[in-house]
Amino acid sequence: MDMTIDAIHQAYRDGKLSPHKLIDEVLKRAATYADRNIWITLLSREAIQPYLDNLIGQSPDKLPLYGIPFAIKDNIELAGVDVTAGCEAYRYTPEQSAHVVELLIAAGAIPIGKTNMDQFATGLVGVRSPDKWGACQNSFDPEYISGGSSSGSAVAVALGLVSFSLGTDTAGSGRVPAAFNNLIGLKPSRGLLSNHGVVPACKSLDCMSIFSLTTDDANRVFEVAAAFDSKDDYSRPNKDTNRKNYGHISADSFNFAIPQAGQLAFFGDHETEQGFYKTLETLKNLGGICHEIDFEPFLTAARLLYEGPWVAERRIATANVKREAMLPVLQQILDSNNTASAEDLFSAEYQLQHCKQQVTPLLENFDFILTPTAGTIYKIKEVLAEPIKLNSQLGYYTNFMNLLDCSAVAVPAGFNSNGLPFGVTLFSRAFSDTRLLSYANQLQQTLKLPLGATALPLPDSRAINSGVTDRIKVVVCG
Amino acid sequence: MDMTIDAIHQAYRDGKLSPHKLIDEVLKRAATYADRNIWITLLSREAIQPYLDNLIGQSPDKLPLYGIPFAIKDNIELAGVDVTAGCEAYRYTPEQSAHVVELLIAAGAIPIGKTNMDQFATGLVGVRSPDKWGACQNSFDPEYISGGSSSGSAVAVALGLVSFSLGTDTAGSGRVPAAFNNLIGLKPSRGLLSNHGVVPACKSLDCMSIFSLTTDDANRVFEVAAAFDSKDDYSRPNKDTNRKNYGHISADSFNFAIPQAGQLAFFGDHETEQGFYKTLETLKNLGGICHEIDFEPFLTAARLLYEGPWVAERRIATANVKREAMLPVLQQILDSNNTASAEDLFSAEYQLQHCKQQVTPLLENFDFILTPTAGTIYKIKEVLAEPIKLNSQLGYYTNFMNLLDCSAVAVPAGFNSNGLPFGVTLFSRAFSDTRLLSYANQLQQTLKLPLGATALPLPDSRAINSGVTDRIKVVVCG
Repeated sequence: MDMTIDAIHQAYRDGKLSPHKLIDEVLKRAATYADRNIWITLLSREAIQPYLDNLIGQSPDKLPLYGIPFAIKDNIELAGVDVTAGCEAYRYTPEQSAHVVELLIAAGAIPIGKTNMDQFATGLVGVRSPDKWGACQNSFDPEYISGGSSSGSAVAVALGLVSFSLGTDTAGSGRVPAAFNNLIGLKPSRGLLSNHGVVPACKSLDCMSIFSLTTDDANRVFEVAAAFDSKDDYSRPNKDTNRKNYGHISADSFNFAIPQAGQLAFFGDHETEQGFYKTLETLKNLGGICHEIDFEPFLTAARLLYEGPWVAERRIATANVKREAMLPVLQQILDSNNTASAEDLFSAEYQLQHCKQQVTPLLENFDFILTPTAGTIYKIKEVLAEPIKLNSQLGYYTNFMNLLDCSAVAVPAGFNSNGLPFGVTLFSRAFSDTRLLSYANQLQQTLKLPLGATALPLPDSRAINSGVTDRIKVVVCG
Repeated sequence: MDMTIDAIHQAYRDGKLSPHKLIDEVLKRAATYADRNIWITLLSREAIQPYLDNLIGQSPDKLPLYGIPFAIKDNIELAGVDVTAGCEAYRYTPEQSAHVVELLIAAGAIPIGKTNMDQFATGLVGVRSPDKWGACQNSFDPEYISGGSSSGSAVAVALGLVSFSLGTDTAGSGRVPAAFNNLIGLKPSRGLLSNHGVVPACKSLDCMSIFSLTTDDANRVFEVAAAFDSKDDYSRPNKDTNRKNYGHISADSFNFAIPQAGQLAFFGDHETEQGFYKTLETLKNLGGICHEIDFEPFLTAARLLYEGPWVAERRIATANVKREAMLPVLQQILDSNNTASAEDLFSAEYQLQHCKQQVTPLLENFDFILTPTAGTIYKIKEVLAEPIKLNSQLGYYTNFMNLLDCSAVAVPAGFNSNGLPFGVTLFSRAFSDTRLLSYANQLQQTLKLPLGATALPLPDSRAINSGVTDRIKVVVCG
C-alpha cells in the first residue's frame, strides 16, 4: 500500500482505514521481513496501543501526522523502550522520549520500533551491527548493504513498513542509506532538530535526519520536528525564510554547481557516473544552469572528520563503554589518532575555518550544489572484507556537510542494471532546508521513480499541484 | 590641543593647522613623554613623510580620516616597520601593512608609531614588557598600571599624542586600558576588523580593537576599518543593521541588565563600586530600565579562557619562539595546562556551548548588559609582586566576551579620589557595535568627563547635535 502521509490520511478520511487497522497491517508485514535485520526493538501491539489511544477525538485535519507510523533509530530515545546504539553493553531504558520524538507523537505519529544501526552511529555501511542483530540488508537486494549508520530506519521506509523514520546524520548516515534505498534523506541544518534524547556520536556535529518516500512528507515531518529546544546546547531557532517556505521557488531558472572534472569520484562505477550526468540533464531541462566549482575545500573538510581529531568526540561519547564490548572495527576507529592534543584540535579547527571561508561564496552564489550521494554501492561481503576503506569511500560526498554547516537533501535519481538505486544530493548553507526540498521535489516529480522499494508509483506533489513551484518552466536545452 | 577628529578637521578647514604641523607637534609632545614607555617604535619624521605626501590633493571632505594621527599596537603590521609583539626574539619586518592599517591609511590616517604591549598580548596589566621597553605607565599617575595588553595604544590616545589607536582585544586588552585611561574602547564584533597582518594570540578569538577619546571617533574609525577580508579566515561581513547605524536609537526608554547581587566584584575597591552604582543612576535618568540577571554563565565562560585548554592557542601562536626568550610570567602561563588533549578541548567547547545557549536570551532581551570594565586598578609594583592573580582579577568582566561572541564598548564613567578613572562596559551580542556606541555616546555626553588625560572638555557629539539620538528623553526617576 501507498504509505505516503497524504495517501494514508485520504484512506482515513474515506473510512477505508483506521490507525488500528494500519498498525495491525504494519506489524504483519514487518514479520514477513524479519530476516532483513531492520529492527533492534520492534514494538508489540500492546506497546503501541497507548499511542493509538492518544488519537481518540483527533483527526488528520487536527494533527499533521495523525495515525502515521514511524520508525526510530536506536540511538534516539522512546520512553520506556531500551536504547542500545547498536551495542548491548550500552543498553538502558529511558524514562522520556527525545524532544523530537515527543513532538512527532504529539502531532499524531505512531512509533513502531527502534531500528538497527552501525554501532554508535559510526559507519556509513549498515553492516557494523553485532551478530545478535546482524547486518541490515538492502531493501532491493539482500546481498547489498543498506548503507548506514541509519540502516534500519532507511529500510523500514523503503519496504513500506512506516511512512517516515528518524535517523541521525553526523557524517552521511542519513543520506547514504537514503541513496541505497531509493528514498528522500533530509539532513537538516544542524540544531534545527533537537539532539536532546539522542546518543551523541560527535556532539558538536550531530544532526538528526529524516527518511521519507517523498519530499512532501519530509517537509511535513520537518515542520513538526524543527523546534528550538533549550535542553540541547546546540539547538538553533529556525529562520523565517526557512519556515513554511516549501514549494516557494522564486525564479524561472536556477543556478547549481557540481565539482569540477577530476573531483567527482565513482570508484569504478560507470553506471552511477552515467546516472549522475543524466540527472544533470534532467535539472538543466528544468531550467537549471550548471556551473563547475573547485570542490577541494569540501574534500579537505571531509578528510578532517575521520583523519583528524574529531574522532576524540566519539571517544568522549563512548567513554563509559568498555572497548571489548564493541565491534573490533569500532575499537580500531576509536583508538586511531588518540594522542591528539588540544593544539592538534585547534590546528584542525583553523584548517576547517579556512575551508569555511573558502566555501562561503560558493554556497552563497548557487541555489544549490549537486553531487552524487555516494559514488557507488557495495555488497555486504565486500564491506566485511574491507571495512574501513570502503566505508571511507562512501563518505566522499557526505563527511564535510556538518563540519561546514550545510543542509542537504538526498534524492533518488535512478537505477543501475543491477537493480540497485543511486541518488544525488542537493546541498547549501544552513537554513536552506525548505529551499533544497523544493528543488528536490521538482527533481523527484520529474523523474517519477517508484516509492522506495515498493514498486508503487510516486504520487503527485501537493506543493506542485497547488501551483506553488510550477513557476519553474521546462526549458529544453541543446 | 583637542585631538578629536572633528576638532582637527575644523582646524584644517580653518587654515589654523596642517597635517605637517600637526605631526611636528605630535612628535615634539611624544618626546616629552619618553619616560612613560608608550612606544616600542616611534616613527621618525622621515618615516612619516610618505603618509603626509599621500594627502596631497585630498581634504577632510574627501577622506574621513584625513591627516589624523594614530598609533598601532606592536602586534599589528605596518609596512617596513618592525613587529615585536613585545618580544625581541620575535622581531621581524613586514613588507605590507595589516588589512585594517591599509584601510585607515587609505582613509587619510597617519601612523605615528608602534606601541608597547604585554608580551604576545598575554595580559591585562601593561607591565609584561621586557626591561628594554619597560612597564607602560598610566596616563594619570605613573605609579599605576596602564592596563594591557594594549597599554601603549591607550596611553598614546589618553595623552593626546594621537586621535585614536589600534589595539587587540582577545580577553579584555582593548577595554581594561580604556577604563584605566579614561577612554572609549571599542571591542568590535569578532571578524569585522580583519586580523590579516596581526600576530595571533588565540587565533579563534582574536579581535582588533579601537581606542578613542569619543564614541563619535570610535564610530568613524570603525566605519573605515570594518570591511570583510577574505585573507582572514575568521573575517565576517558586517550586517546592514550594524552599518551606518550610529546614533539611531529607536525608543524613548531602554532596557539594560547588570549582574545580580553577589556577582559584582570590586576586590575591595569601594569607590569604584560606588561609581558603578552612580553610573546606573545616570543611565536610569536617561530612560534606562535596569534589570538584574544571573551572570554565572558569563563568569563560567570567562574562567574557561585561562583555566581551560584555550591556552593551547597561545602555544601554537608562539611555537617558534624559544621559551627562554620570553618573560618568566609568559613562560608560566604558556606552560600551564599543557597536557590538554583534544578530548579536553572538546569537553571545554561543550561547556562553552552550554554557556552560549544560556546567555542567548539574555543578550536578546536587553538593549545591553552593563558591568564595570574592571573592578579595581593596581599600582605597577603591586602587579609585579603578584603577576598572575591580580591580572586575573582584571579580567573578571572581560574574559568571556569573545568566547561568547559579543561586541562591547568600554566607556569612561568617572574618577576616584586617587585621581584615577574608572569605567563601565556596555555589551551585547555580535553585530551590535553601532547600537552600543550609540548608548555609550548618550552616557559619555551626559557625564561630560574630560578627554582622556588631557583635562580638555568633551566636545558635543555630532550624532546628538544632528538630533539623531535625542529621542532618548531625560526621565528623572525615583
